[in-house]
Amino acid sequence: MTAPLEFWFEFGSTYSYPAAMRIERLAREQGVPLVWRAFLLGPIFKDQGWNDSPFNLYPAKGRYMWRDLARICEAQGLPLQRPSRFPRNGLLAARVACRFAGEPWLPEFVRAVYDANFARDLEIAEPAVVAECLARAGQEPAARLEEAQSGAAKDALRAQSEQAQRLGLFGAPSFLVGDELFWGNDRLEAALAWQRRGGMPS
Amino acid sequence: MTAPLEFWFEFGSTYSYPAAMRIERLAREQGVPLVWRAFLLGPIFKDQGWNDSPFNLYPAKGRYMWRDLARICEAQGLPLQRPSRFPRNGLLAARVACRFAGEPWLPEFVRAVYDANFARDLEIAEPAVVAECLARAGQEPAARLEEAQSGAAKDALRAQSEQAQRLGLFGAPSFLVGDELFWGNDRLEAALAWQRRGGMPS
Repeated sequence: MTAPLEFWFEFGSTYSYPAAMRIERLAREQGVPLVWRAFLLGPIFKDQGWNDSPFNLYPAKGRYMWRDLARICEAQGLPLQRPSRFPRNGLLAARVACRFAGEPWLPEFVRAVYDANFARDLEIAEPAVVAECLARAGQEPAARLEEAQSGAAKDALRAQSEQAQRLGLFGAPSFLVGDELFWGNDRLEAALAWQRRGGMPS
Repeated sequence: MTAPLEFWFEFGSTYSYPAAMRIERLAREQGVPLVWRAFLLGPIFKDQGWNDSPFNLYPAKGRYMWRDLARICEAQGLPLQRPSRFPRNGLLAARVACRFAGEPWLPEFVRAVYDANFARDLEIAEPAVVAECLARAGQEPAARLEEAQSGAAKDALRAQSEQAQRLGLFGAPSFLVGDELFWGNDRLEAALAWQRRGGMPS
């Protein structure tokens, strides 16, 4: 049996936004099993000698990215408001997403967080914003936030982020089918096709 | 009248290879006027603090790129032999490409150089290899090489590379339609569509 499609995302990552907003629909339409994997890019960037997003460190690349993202969101019919702070710290939201990865409401929560960050310019590092996203996904915020901040939940996200690095991930979004890695929102279709073909080239 | 599609390429750049091999056919099929613009990435990378390709400086990114390129070439039916030296110095070939940018044989020469670098593992920095590529494009090598190494031809490539940086280019391949920048082989289709729509969003 072919491995499922793993969607590795970081809440601060711009190109993860259009990927997160369409991946569940595409996977369902194509009959591709999907696994949601939140992780943190900060430690990976630090290991490459970066203390900030490369889009901030390399201004020409950053200017291009915002324009490219605007074109992509427009084509996809997605609202985009450039965040007044970039990148935002998605630690708390990622703890929630990691702790509740298998829950049926999780995709809706993930989309609510991306919507907050990139369409509504809200500070997703704040517990109140994450709580609102939980409520949007039909959850009782206080209980979920408490569970997501237990020692075990913190360890789980740390372990998952370390696993991302061991797997060779260096950016987000990334897609994995078994050992086969695809990087970038623009590789989502190729990753889905790869899974459908049972992990074989076209 | 809409600006033509400018194809900015660097002979050492891996993802410029699949772009260079298909752009003329696609542009012709779609009725998109095409301008060939060779440039050097080295000075741009140096300004970002890099003395080598980011694919060498960041090993996880490099490992991924070679695998991704193999998938792309396979899907496109292009031969790929990983160059024993990367990145190769495309200075001489770029001087030829810049000097003779408007000539009808130029696209064939460009494809011959990419084929030498990425399908035949030849050292494109060597005049003998560039000469063979000129011959493949039906040109008398010695005369063309001499013209491409005149002071004026050297200045022209330097000026074009400086222009690339002023235009905000930071990688290759890049595509420009007027002020609208598209970066990466995977943006070629979007750039063509942008030109066809007269520089308007979809």
